[in-house]
Amino acid sequence: MTAAATELPAPPPLRDDTLRVYALGGLGEVGRNMTVLEYRGRLLIVDCGVFFPEEHHPGIDLILPDISLVTDRLDDIEAIVLTHGHEDHIGAVPYLLKRKPDIPLVGSTLTLALIEAKLKEHRIVPYTLAVREGQVEQLGVFECEFVAVNHSIPDALAVMVRTGAGTVLHTGDFKMDQLPLDGRLTDLRAFARLGEEGVDLFLTDSTNAEVPGFTMPERDIAPAIDKVFRHATGKIIVACFSSHVHRVQQVLDAAARAGRKVAFVGRSMIRNMTIASDLGYLKVPPGVLIDFKKVDSLRDDQIVLISTGSQGEPMAALSRMANGDHKIEVGPGDTVLLASSLIPGNENAVYRVINGLMRLGAHVVHKGNAKVHTSGHASAGELLYCYNIVKPKNVMPVHGEWRHLVANGELARQTGVPAERILTGESGTVVDLKKGVARITGAYPVGHIYVDGAALGDEHSEELLRDRRILRDEGFVTVIVLVDTAEGKVLAPPEIMTRGVAEKDVVFDPIVPRIEQAVVESMAKGNTDTYALQQVVRRTIGSWLGSKLRRRPMIIPIVIDA
Amino acid sequence: MTAAATELPAPPPLRDDTLRVYALGGLGEVGRNMTVLEYRGRLLIVDCGVFFPEEHHPGIDLILPDISLVTDRLDDIEAIVLTHGHEDHIGAVPYLLKRKPDIPLVGSTLTLALIEAKLKEHRIVPYTLAVREGQVEQLGVFECEFVAVNHSIPDALAVMVRTGAGTVLHTGDFKMDQLPLDGRLTDLRAFARLGEEGVDLFLTDSTNAEVPGFTMPERDIAPAIDKVFRHATGKIIVACFSSHVHRVQQVLDAAARAGRKVAFVGRSMIRNMTIASDLGYLKVPPGVLIDFKKVDSLRDDQIVLISTGSQGEPMAALSRMANGDHKIEVGPGDTVLLASSLIPGNENAVYRVINGLMRLGAHVVHKGNAKVHTSGHASAGELLYCYNIVKPKNVMPVHGEWRHLVANGELARQTGVPAERILTGESGTVVDLKKGVARITGAYPVGHIYVDGAALGDEHSEELLRDRRILRDEGFVTVIVLVDTAEGKVLAPPEIMTRGVAEKDVVFDPIVPRIEQAVVESMAKGNTDTYALQQVVRRTIGSWLGSKLRRRPMIIPIVIDA
Repeated sequence: MTAAATELPAPPPLRDDTLRVYALGGLGEVGRNMTVLEYRGRLLIVDCGVFFPEEHHPGIDLILPDISLVTDRLDDIEAIVLTHGHEDHIGAVPYLLKRKPDIPLVGSTLTLALIEAKLKEHRIVPYTLAVREGQVEQLGVFECEFVAVNHSIPDALAVMVRTGAGTVLHTGDFKMDQLPLDGRLTDLRAFARLGEEGVDLFLTDSTNAEVPGFTMPERDIAPAIDKVFRHATGKIIVACFSSHVHRVQQVLDAAARAGRKVAFVGRSMIRNMTIASDLGYLKVPPGVLIDFKKVDSLRDDQIVLISTGSQGEPMAALSRMANGDHKIEVGPGDTVLLASSLIPGNENAVYRVINGLMRLGAHVVHKGNAKVHTSGHASAGELLYCYNIVKPKNVMPVHGEWRHLVANGELARQTGVPAERILTGESGTVVDLKKGVARITGAYPVGHIYVDGAALGDEHSEELLRDRRILRDEGFVTVIVLVDTAEGKVLAPPEIMTRGVAEKDVVFDPIVPRIEQAVVESMAKGNTDTYALQQVVRRTIGSWLGSKLRRRPMIIPIVIDA
Repeated sequence: MTAAATELPAPPPLRDDTLRVYALGGLGEVGRNMTVLEYRGRLLIVDCGVFFPEEHHPGIDLILPDISLVTDRLDDIEAIVLTHGHEDHIGAVPYLLKRKPDIPLVGSTLTLALIEAKLKEHRIVPYTLAVREGQVEQLGVFECEFVAVNHSIPDALAVMVRTGAGTVLHTGDFKMDQLPLDGRLTDLRAFARLGEEGVDLFLTDSTNAEVPGFTMPERDIAPAIDKVFRHATGKIIVACFSSHVHRVQQVLDAAARAGRKVAFVGRSMIRNMTIASDLGYLKVPPGVLIDFKKVDSLRDDQIVLISTGSQGEPMAALSRMANGDHKIEVGPGDTVLLASSLIPGNENAVYRVINGLMRLGAHVVHKGNAKVHTSGHASAGELLYCYNIVKPKNVMPVHGEWRHLVANGELARQTGVPAERILTGESGTVVDLKKGVARITGAYPVGHIYVDGAALGDEHSEELLRDRRILRDEGFVTVIVLVDTAEGKVLAPPEIMTRGVAEKDVVFDPIVPRIEQAVVESMAKGNTDTYALQQVVRRTIGSWLGSKLRRRPMIIPIVIDA
């Protein structure tokens, strides 16, 4: 059962015998994950993350799930369950709590520590309930049982939700590393037990559903890291995600073996690793860690820097090093290790950093030339295990673009879930569960909420982005006309000013008298409203630009009655 | 020997015993390939291609090699040798010939046919010299021998250039498919013979130098294409590059075997395939090809469309099909085959198309889930063969970003070329060859020439792009102040107008009286120049925007003395 949300009607009123599930983000896109479970008038939210803007979102800092759909029902929200501490699962929490700071946050110790640090920047102290695997909590009408899963951040949880209308098992983001660094397995015994109890609706992570086989264990990248340490003669600079505690652990261990010292670089790296180390998730070998300020006192072959910027972010330390614009000078003999994925869309930025570092003489090791990264998500082979162990009645693929959701649904089908019991939808698509049968019954209109500096985007944001895209590609033309409407005169030749238009100013000379003439003629016809005269100016120059110059810049006519 | 062009001095005057080689594009970047060989005051140009803009080139159509460095020496240009017919090797020819249409173009039959079709759109009839493999031509002081190579377009050539100061072998773009569809091998016997004669400087394609092993033969993708044809129940839509004659050949052959009819979709696809078929490079099985207009008369399971748009270009047929905005309706049962590479930077656009097609119910096959594409460039293993067969005295890696050039140079080193005889440089880096020894002797300042609609960018283009980037991210604020400088009065409250700024108009209210006050005070100090008053306005609102709103939009102050 497949349905694009935009083609569906509004869902019917929710009856008390039915559990409703829908996403306000994260389906049909990678990021801004947020799922709502609704039962008997109460809402349980699972995750509340951000989406990182792409090139068609110019100037936008973040995109939020469409929290506007719950902001008139804030008192109905029982709790927000956070499955793990990644930005695409917790990043939008501050924007929801700004509207109601006492919505309880439920999650593991590390997850709560990370969101609390983030909320501190927004000056919000949240109500929290720390939970761990195996724990069962009654949250209003929702009974939640938490299950250990492993992922590219420690302490991730899946959640089983039991209600009077059925059960939902939500995996969160997960993989099934059978030899995890911290020994914390995805708890397939619990998945089996819950499956035997009966999982009516199974929400599963689709990110890697298109990838055949099995995700490589995290510890299998150790040899590639060790090789870097064996061959490096100068500084070693490692870039990875600032939440990837296990990756950092591997680098710390390699540094200890090689007798090098490690300093963290970048605000989020320092903050997260301090939290992870304080809580015992990161085990720093004695004497290995030093403050960045003390790096100067070491020889190059004693130094390891662990930095942010693995996605080529222009302001991050690594990009600035590549541009020769950072305190740390990179040169021949130095090795840079990008121990990270390459998120689609970031390729040009990342290759720009790699080229810049190589141009300075550095040796650059990345997933394109060495096994220095593995994913945090279950590949197709692992998902098949999951479906066979849980044997869910209904499946709703979550977390992914359409192609990922379809691939994940196809895996469920291969394990024997009937095609009509696989609910593939987009953000907004409503799945209603009743007596063990889940159906798509409609859709809510889920839009985008843009964060742009201090402003939170509303319905005008699409218009704003359209304006910015025109300005980006075509620039603008301002025409200023000073008129005396009483006399019907134009007081001075219209002035034309352009920015971002690929034409020299002189090109516009021929149109100036025509604009003047058009305005005079319009006034002669009794037109004395400056807004109407502005439209005359717009039409006159607009058609000329289109036909003569084949351009469509933004046109800003300004008529002043002086 | 590695040198970034920006750190090098101007090269010394060229002496008659020296052959000079430098690129005006294509080194340190993928695209706009153009190499200049200079000897005794004469220039031989090898290729003259375009670069396709990235996200930091908003609104730009094309980027050219820096032809400004040869436009004051047009009479010195002996000829332009075109190695093959791809846009990144021929696309800038019209812009050079516009300045001097009688520069001879030298290339293979297909290459010349493709550039002639392009020049026709620019209303230029070129002087051409068709050559084929094995042929030797004396072009002024340059003796050129042409060598067959295979690539992702037929009829590609390498060129050996002999001068009084030494020999240069330029591979163009190439790979070493040992079982090519058309039987035309990269002529390693010729490479061997030229190597025995002595290749002083070897310019080699770096594109795939980072890729280990060997590039898969084109014919090895046939099984994946056949599988698509076997399983498809509805229409088959194949997207690939419009110059990939052999890929299209494979689809035509598969269609013939399956009893389907093929129509071409997209202007460049139709044009190129007509040329290739007229010249005998494309062998259309009898009765297979039909006109697109006649597709309606066929059942879906009889239809194959071969279309452009494999890179997610928004205006191409495939993107419009994915948006439901094309005459061809894609739906369940239809299969779309993206038989193409995914050029870095295009990922988001391509995945958007794939998701759109899947959302409509189509089955989408692409290089991520099937072996439906192979590269046109030699991988590391093939380049090692080349170096061992040619045994060049000096090597200059060409065609690639810095990471590719370095990887290619490293391959040369592994085959025994001394490190100091490997000349790794950027566009502009000058390599001088004298008595069998090549050295980097300086660099020319190579800039970018932007094509933007009808306009050809000059030195102002960087400023234009800076403006567009600001407008894209921050928008602009226009402030209009009507003053009477004689009276020292502001005639009406300043008007503020914004576009692309993420703030509501009302936010600006507090600054209006302050602007008025600042202008009045400035006039009171005797300031009556409107330009100077505009700077007062700019400073007043600029510092307010920065400190209060933390924004940096473009500010356009307009002060009119009425």
